[in-house]
Amino acid sequence: MLSFENDYSEGAHPKILQALTETNLVQQVGYGEDEYSLRAKDKIRAAVGDPDADIFFLIGGTQSNQVVIDGLLHSTEGVIAVTTGHVNVHEAGAIEYTGHKVLTLPAHEGKIDAGELAAYLRDFYADPTYPHMVYPGGVYISHPTEYGTLYSKAELEALHTVCREYAIPLFLDGARLGYGLMSDAADVTLPDIAALCDAFYIGGTKVGALCGEAVVFPRHGAPKRFITHIKQHGAMVAKGRLIGVQFDALFTDSLYFDISRHAIEMAKKLKQGFAERSYSFFIDSPTNQQFVIVSNDTLSKLSENVRYSYWQKYDDTHSVVRFATSWATPPENIDALMALLDEERKNL
Amino acid sequence: MLSFENDYSEGAHPKILQALTETNLVQQVGYGEDEYSLRAKDKIRAAVGDPDADIFFLIGGTQSNQVVIDGLLHSTEGVIAVTTGHVNVHEAGAIEYTGHKVLTLPAHEGKIDAGELAAYLRDFYADPTYPHMVYPGGVYISHPTEYGTLYSKAELEALHTVCREYAIPLFLDGARLGYGLMSDAADVTLPDIAALCDAFYIGGTKVGALCGEAVVFPRHGAPKRFITHIKQHGAMVAKGRLIGVQFDALFTDSLYFDISRHAIEMAKKLKQGFAERSYSFFIDSPTNQQFVIVSNDTLSKLSENVRYSYWQKYDDTHSVVRFATSWATPPENIDALMALLDEERKNL
Amino acid sequence: MLSFENDYSEGAHPKILQALTETNLVQQVGYGEDEYSLRAKDKIRAAVGDPDADIFFLIGGTQSNQVVIDGLLHSTEGVIAVTTGHVNVHEAGAIEYTGHKVLTLPAHEGKIDAGELAAYLRDFYADPTYPHMVYPGGVYISHPTEYGTLYSKAELEALHTVCREYAIPLFLDGARLGYGLMSDAADVTLPDIAALCDAFYIGGTKVGALCGEAVVFPRHGAPKRFITHIKQHGAMVAKGRLIGVQFDALFTDSLYFDISRHAIEMAKKLKQGFAERSYSFFIDSPTNQQFVIVSNDTLSKLSENVRYSYWQKYDDTHSVVRFATSWATPPENIDALMALLDEERKNL
Amino acid sequence: MLSFENDYSEGAHPKILQALTETNLVQQVGYGEDEYSLRAKDKIRAAVGDPDADIFFLIGGTQSNQVVIDGLLHSTEGVIAVTTGHVNVHEAGAIEYTGHKVLTLPAHEGKIDAGELAAYLRDFYADPTYPHMVYPGGVYISHPTEYGTLYSKAELEALHTVCREYAIPLFLDGARLGYGLMSDAADVTLPDIAALCDAFYIGGTKVGALCGEAVVFPRHGAPKRFITHIKQHGAMVAKGRLIGVQFDALFTDSLYFDISRHAIEMAKKLKQGFAERSYSFFIDSPTNQQFVIVSNDTLSKLSENVRYSYWQKYDDTHSVVRFATSWATPPENIDALMALLDEERKNL
Repeated sequence: MLSFENDYSEGAHPKILQALTETNLVQQVGYGEDEYSLRAKDKIRAAVGDPDADIFFLIGGTQSNQVVIDGLLHSTEGVIAVTTGHVNVHEAGAIEYTGHKVLTLPAHEGKIDAGELAAYLRDFYADPTYPHMVYPGGVYISHPTEYGTLYSKAELEALHTVCREYAIPLFLDGARLGYGLMSDAADVTLPDIAALCDAFYIGGTKVGALCGEAVVFPRHGAPKRFITHIKQHGAMVAKGRLIGVQFDALFTDSLYFDISRHAIEMAKKLKQGFAERSYSFFIDSPTNQQFVIVSNDTLSKLSENVRYSYWQKYDDTHSVVRFATSWATPPENIDALMALLDEERKNL
Repeated sequence: MLSFENDYSEGAHPKILQALTETNLVQQVGYGEDEYSLRAKDKIRAAVGDPDADIFFLIGGTQSNQVVIDGLLHSTEGVIAVTTGHVNVHEAGAIEYTGHKVLTLPAHEGKIDAGELAAYLRDFYADPTYPHMVYPGGVYISHPTEYGTLYSKAELEALHTVCREYAIPLFLDGARLGYGLMSDAADVTLPDIAALCDAFYIGGTKVGALCGEAVVFPRHGAPKRFITHIKQHGAMVAKGRLIGVQFDALFTDSLYFDISRHAIEMAKKLKQGFAERSYSFFIDSPTNQQFVIVSNDTLSKLSENVRYSYWQKYDDTHSVVRFATSWATPPENIDALMALLDEERKNL
Repeated sequence: MLSFENDYSEGAHPKILQALTETNLVQQVGYGEDEYSLRAKDKIRAAVGDPDADIFFLIGGTQSNQVVIDGLLHSTEGVIAVTTGHVNVHEAGAIEYTGHKVLTLPAHEGKIDAGELAAYLRDFYADPTYPHMVYPGGVYISHPTEYGTLYSKAELEALHTVCREYAIPLFLDGARLGYGLMSDAADVTLPDIAALCDAFYIGGTKVGALCGEAVVFPRHGAPKRFITHIKQHGAMVAKGRLIGVQFDALFTDSLYFDISRHAIEMAKKLKQGFAERSYSFFIDSPTNQQFVIVSNDTLSKLSENVRYSYWQKYDDTHSVVRFATSWATPPENIDALMALLDEERKNL
Repeated sequence: MLSFENDYSEGAHPKILQALTETNLVQQVGYGEDEYSLRAKDKIRAAVGDPDADIFFLIGGTQSNQVVIDGLLHSTEGVIAVTTGHVNVHEAGAIEYTGHKVLTLPAHEGKIDAGELAAYLRDFYADPTYPHMVYPGGVYISHPTEYGTLYSKAELEALHTVCREYAIPLFLDGARLGYGLMSDAADVTLPDIAALCDAFYIGGTKVGALCGEAVVFPRHGAPKRFITHIKQHGAMVAKGRLIGVQFDALFTDSLYFDISRHAIEMAKKLKQGFAERSYSFFIDSPTNQQFVIVSNDTLSKLSENVRYSYWQKYDDTHSVVRFATSWATPPENIDALMALLDEERKNL
């Protein structure tokens, strides 16, 4: 079985396992105060270009979104996101569980439009009954988005400007940040993100780690008592070294960026393969998630040998499915996928 | 620096790292449906003697307590625990964060007394204003307790009987369960616990894993939609294999029990060493946590070379400190500690 | 100043004040167990045609929506409402505060469409990732809606059928229920509502009471320990008699219905007045809220003597404003409003 | 049936009903912006001696405690109260429902001891693991307490000093404040309370109103967006005039104080009556709640004609019961109670 179902089908990059093995028996204090975590944070501060960044390691993406958003917002506030945003759809109400409404704006290939955001905020405060409504208290974006698309630097600056005007934080979900940064279409760098966002996280789970996300609050911007806040949400890891060692490895010798670039190369190869076989794409994604329109007949055969993510119905005889590459995808897997497509075509 | 500060100062047992390495590139589905997790659950079902047990893997202890208790209780209910219970003191209000009160009973060497529990429940329903109070909706115990002590089978049966009478679940926090099961004083087995409790977890973080706790609901007793509940609490791990592989290793060839016994042997050696040097113990703990009364002068010197946990003031010149052994403690470390004590004595 | 701003600008119907005065010094027990509350509940049971209805008195509308919805839903569930629904817009996130997402469907003149509801529910369960999403756990409708519109019996039956199919409760917000029942367009009766809904409330605050809503769960359908649930939400009234006496008066000699009919008569007079003066209506409302399109110039003048609710921009020179009548509106007030409109026209 | 069960057995003081009747048909805006509410707030500001006090009207006591405490605390914080505090026992977990732990100190006749409070706070910050625990974020006291007792000015100053030292708010639950202020033992005035507390409320429900509590934050100390916070908790009253008119009446011509003094006079008469009949008191209460030790035989007979509150078991043959007087208690009721006691004694 060949899996393109997601970018977390394998374990970890071998260098991470090696680092875990090498440090295994060194005694360390718990709760993220170990030397590996401290060292990893220093490396991340260097990479984001902000020596004052507050950094925390959490286990996963939904957890990071929940803990960060609940930390940033006042209790009367909700977070603005696009209707297709992960926090609005695929987190089982983790945001609402913490008492905050997800306020939705239309998605433009997964992205929020700065003009629409500005209009939303202007209209909110123009309505004299606004104290009876949920205050817009922050903006959630993902980069890459759920559709693999990317914000341009101009787009990010425009969002930043609107957020500054209304004094609300801009939070960037970087679960797949490496793939966004290493895309051929990448227009923003890690320091750009640190400069333009009030909070973001550098995804590890989907970019080569066993688990872990590095939450960054530039400019000493961590919410009050964030350690206790993490603990209260059940998100504190006793052996903080587990994530520290991994990010230490990922941010040594550009590993994070190198393996991300590999996934992009594989995505391009996969995209080219589909294109050469005259498949259409639901969206033009420049990152590791490719959304292909496939006939249901082909899918039915393909699913005997390949795992992919069903995305949505396209028409009565076709579906949109997602193929994801990752740091771990070997080129042979893509060749094998293409061979299956060719074989399938012959049989039709 | 020699650390007896806790039982999570090292990484993982080498067999766990080996299993993670061997399985690393095998593609698996996410969210705990991977074959390693499924296999680990089967092995745990066999070990607890309940083929119908529902099993879920979570990352850590506070998270497990929070997610399980919030899953078991109705919104009008609180959980009964001793005043010294971990959920009442050291979890930053993680239980209250989910809306539930921790209802406290006196601690007897860290344990709840079945008679006092019965009296509490009887008195609650005897007060006609009880609908204006928090309903006692479950009982939380830890085994070993925060003080390293153990419930006897008779004590556990008595708690079970009271819980049955009031139809409330009995939940056992087994963060250090291995050390409780392998103690010379152990009177209850894993199947006993499964028979007498409605929920419990088998701790991994403190017993040789990088992370992970196996939450067990015997007799298909998982709360409704527990998967979604986990997700909503931000506690779902994308690469569920991370915990699955570890518990698969721990429950292969008795590894979990063997390494737990090692910690107990080390604790006995440590206890004997202190006793031979005429130290007194704050409590007679039969497990891997030893609570020793040490003069502040000695502690002050010791702390240059040794890490331990300060527990509480004993008198004006002495303190209670905790020394913990673990699966990873080499006998040489205890010898070294004793040598330091002897040296210190000479200098006095 | 003439107010058509809302239907809660005055105190209470004089018969209510009289009843409060007459019963004032009779000693009663608290928390809704007083004889007036018990008697009022009996009268409401008779009026809704369900001797098994569970009835609770709460203070206000947002509180009722919050307490009822949180009582009906499982923690993994959200409530379905139209985008314009009161719970989605004007309750400051009171639903999300209790941990539940408001899941939105398009509004059709303020109403939910049974076909769209069925499609939503079918699609939800058709998506294999649904355990990672918020479960649809109930349906919230208002009758009359925020736009003064009414469900027909056929529409309500269709919603009922869909809810039955998916075993989720149908909850009707009846903050203005009297005005819905006494409209010329009324197609459903109180017993119809009790038969077709799993929960609803009979609004008092906007229909002649000082405060108070009567929450009805037909067929002994109250959520578990609802009294404690109310208390926990801070919604328990010590002097329950305050609401009991009022509903006792409202459901004596058809007072609730008579005063509601008065408001409808006044709304018809107001509507006719505007129509005769060639005003257009934003929506054709058959109840006590009338949505009129008025030029901004006229509004500007009018606002010196009249209070109304600004609803939304219509075009660059016109706005939609709401005029509400109530049990308390004297016909003279409408005559006075029309005189002001005529005078204004002359000046243009 | 004669009721001494509580101080909310009757409706409202006649002057309140009269004010509601007189203002009934005057049109007013909603949500507490009506002229009666504004006027009442001015009068309360004058009475508390703080022209900068922020004032909000809520419906009841548990609601006020919940909304105020949740408004004052950070999410990582709990509120300190005595074990017998209303928030800890009789509010069905309303505080924990909002995510905050109630941190308990011993009760001294219902009161918190400033020295014990200081020690608690000092010990909390002395424990290096405190970021893993619930922060003490405020102090809750009641005046009179649950046992009818009062803080002296020196005691209140001492609490104030400790709270200032740790920069946490002192919140006084004044559900029965009038009875505390007019007691012969009263040592603190309303301006004293405003000077020494960061938040408090002046109880209406138990002191002559149909409903309503006036929440006061001296020195513009209201939490951020408190109006929205109230709405989110379902505690906003549409017809705010209902409470405004009542407090306007209560703070006109000293009504609040005069009717409170009446209750105190009645309590003294009742206390004297019991004392003359050689009854013992469980506690020496100087306010309107009297806790008498009565034989179970007598109680059994008495309960045919009298309602009281059972408080607790005293010994095998006696109970502690509470008799409460109020603004509404006529002296004849106490005479009648005494006659019943005398009659009962004859029969023994």
